Amino acid sequence: MRLEYSYRTERFGAVRISPLQRVVEIDGSAADNEVERVQGDGSTRVVGRDTLRGIERDMVIVVPCMNEPRRVIEGVLAGIPHDCLIVLVSNSDRTPVDRYDIELRSLEEYCRLANRPALAVHQRDPGVGAAMKAAGMPEIVDESEGGVRRGKGEAMILAMALAAMSGRRYIGYVDADNYVPGSVHEYCKVYAAGLALADSPYSMVRIAWDSKPKVRDGRLFFSKRGRTSEVTNDFLNRLLAEYSGFGTDAIVTGNAGEHALSLELGLRMRMAGGFAVEPFQFVELFEQFGGVLPDASPVPPEVGVPMLQIGTCNPHFHDNKGDEHVQSMRFQALNVLYHSPVCPPSLRTEILDFLILQGALEPGQEPLRERVYPPVGTLALDRLYDVLAGEATSFRQFGHKVTAVTPRTVVPIERGVVHDTVRETSVLA
Amino acid sequence: MRLEYSYRTERFGAVRISPLQRVVEIDGSAADNEVERVQGDGSTRVVGRDTLRGIERDMVIVVPCMNEPRRVIEGVLAGIPHDCLIVLVSNSDRTPVDRYDIELRSLEEYCRLANRPALAVHQRDPGVGAAMKAAGMPEIVDESEGGVRRGKGEAMILAMALAAMSGRRYIGYVDADNYVPGSVHEYCKVYAAGLALADSPYSMVRIAWDSKPKVRDGRLFFSKRGRTSEVTNDFLNRLLAEYSGFGTDAIVTGNAGEHALSLELGLRMRMAGGFAVEPFQFVELFEQFGGVLPDASPVPPEVGVPMLQIGTCNPHFHDNKGDEHVQSMRFQALNVLYHSPVCPPSLRTEILDFLILQGALEPGQEPLRERVYPPVGTLALDRLYDVLAGEATSFRQFGHKVTAVTPRTVVPIERGVVHDTVRETSVLA
Repeated sequence: MRLEYSYRTERFGAVRISPLQRVVEIDGSAADNEVERVQGDGSTRVVGRDTLRGIERDMVIVVPCMNEPRRVIEGVLAGIPHDCLIVLVSNSDRTPVDRYDIELRSLEEYCRLANRPALAVHQRDPGVGAAMKAAGMPEIVDESEGGVRRGKGEAMILAMALAAMSGRRYIGYVDADNYVPGSVHEYCKVYAAGLALADSPYSMVRIAWDSKPKVRDGRLFFSKRGRTSEVTNDFLNRLLAEYSGFGTDAIVTGNAGEHALSLELGLRMRMAGGFAVEPFQFVELFEQFGGVLPDASPVPPEVGVPMLQIGTCNPHFHDNKGDEHVQSMRFQALNVLYHSPVCPPSLRTEILDFLILQGALEPGQEPLRERVYPPVGTLALDRLYDVLAGEATSFRQFGHKVTAVTPRTVVPIERGVVHDTVRETSVLA
Repeated sequence: MRLEYSYRTERFGAVRISPLQRVVEIDGSAADNEVERVQGDGSTRVVGRDTLRGIERDMVIVVPCMNEPRRVIEGVLAGIPHDCLIVLVSNSDRTPVDRYDIELRSLEEYCRLANRPALAVHQRDPGVGAAMKAAGMPEIVDESEGGVRRGKGEAMILAMALAAMSGRRYIGYVDADNYVPGSVHEYCKVYAAGLALADSPYSMVRIAWDSKPKVRDGRLFFSKRGRTSEVTNDFLNRLLAEYSGFGTDAIVTGNAGEHALSLELGLRMRMAGGFAVEPFQFVELFEQFGGVLPDASPVPPEVGVPMLQIGTCNPHFHDNKGDEHVQSMRFQALNVLYHSPVCPPSLRTEILDFLILQGALEPGQEPLRERVYPPVGTLALDRLYDVLAGEATSFRQFGHKVTAVTPRTVVPIERGVVHDTVRETSVLA
């Protein structure tokens, strides 16, 4: 894969945000296998095949799904590189038709045909709720139903716990409502290339789609940015500008559903529920590593927390979720920013004004507080696995045999303590 | 890349047509580098990365373009694997805006950024016409304009001549009106995988899209097959059945614009003009290698002429060309089949009945004779190059230096003579 170089990195303490860099070639495939700085005009970098492969072998790709057509999900699976471990987290309806059962059959068939492993779980399975509770995260459980709460953030937390169990080092998310397997393939390659280039144990890669085609007047229109993203990015950039004193438009992936990160980083991050999950990642990194709060985590400055933003060459053809979806996403992003201790009072006022102008708040009201969950690294993974295996009827492992479940002490991650034992916590073969 | 096995190959003399086999994984990337037969259930085959790379290094990817938006062409380029040589053949308007100039600037910029070579030429450049004439194909020249005639087949012939000049061994075609770079990437990988699996110096790979999305009632509908293809495939399958006595639906790629072949095969095939070019490839192979005509070419039976038909996992999102385009494509396919000496009288009658029913012919009329050009292997490539370099103002080479033009005798290909000197005919470095 060949990417543009990125210049003028924004810093927020130890967090280093690279401005958008685009994919130049999906298969840039230099003869050289290593990450290579192209000489010539010095404007691109190639990540070689073996380097990509090395990351893919250590990467979990999570497919959160909710009632997508079977054919679409099958296409998404076909785009995920062979060496990645697939984790399907479903929030699909189980009545009147058990859509999760359909998904499981597709996944099983695919794993048999492609000779590869996968894990699957249903988010609202009471056994899954019991497992998360036993592992130490009771707040994620919906008490009335017994399963994990319905949000997208909650699905991502559950997936991260499964990824940690697998012993792999990286996790990437790919939405299931994607009509183009080739773009899923590009996302995964972007994750691997970005994580290789990031060159830090704490790294994150966020994807900016080239465009999002919409049907308009009977033809396709390739719109550049969604409305939600524009608002989220604008306020996140204002936050950066408040601290640096320089206006910026560096952040372009505030709502990026497609992103990947090292588990070393992911396991120590708090995560938000629902659609607040993606923008909250910025807020959490600024709080933990920004160096502006008293209990911020110390990170060796030469390592830092690089966040790469990579622009794909594929458009993102997906299902149209409608306006309600967009509205709720937009406000959840501003809610988490508003309530963060890193948000300066002036920006808080701007958020309030905006929400009132949009009719989302009455004057005098406060933005909602979104749910924020503790880091997945605080979970007892052995207990999680035991209860999943024993009680979660929806939990499935395809082509992936458990050889030993070793009860062991999981070191809880505290702020400031670098968690470097991920490799040892595998309970799956 | 992982593909389904294909069973029940159809034979027409030395031509072996494999029924549709689908892509299971875009990146199937076994640790093993060779073409590998997967054990297990034996239902898939993986073509390893190094095998793909070996083919890509020897492959020319042709992008025939005609007035597509610059952004779309740039996306197509980004999907072509790095090691393939890009050949752009344009039939775009040069007034009132010189769209070819826009295309050249995009291509040059892309080649500089991605550090890769490309060739470009404009089909209607009188210098290009003069070069094709000097090389020995005067019939392809439009005498009134001086350039090569306007058809798609004519663009493909010109591109094949350039590919032969480059000294590479394979040629693949990718339409320029494709909105999804990731699908272009898949097509190229399919070409390389198919050519590797074909295991013959005379091989062809034809692509069947998973679906072709259309905008209908304000949403996307993923239709399976185009109307043109259905008719073409149906009549080609009837031809097979006439000879074998068994009905079949093996042929699913009669109109496949996306296809690749070894130049060893391509240089000895006659090619049709316009939209007849793709279906005529079947007719030509049946005539030359089918063993039913007196002057058919002998091919060692253990080698044969394998034709693989591969189903992508990507849909084909492209520009809507409208109904006129479809109509003319449909009739051109039937015209070439009708006039072929391999077409039995009974099938000829069925074609006539169909064309009359469609209102394309009056009773008593004969289908049009499409233009058919001699094999590109009969051209004098050294003369082609000399005139291109000297007179064709549209001919450009990016990042691809000519080190020596060695005048040499090109052995004309005759039926029955295996052309195995392609490697020696390079006039480009």
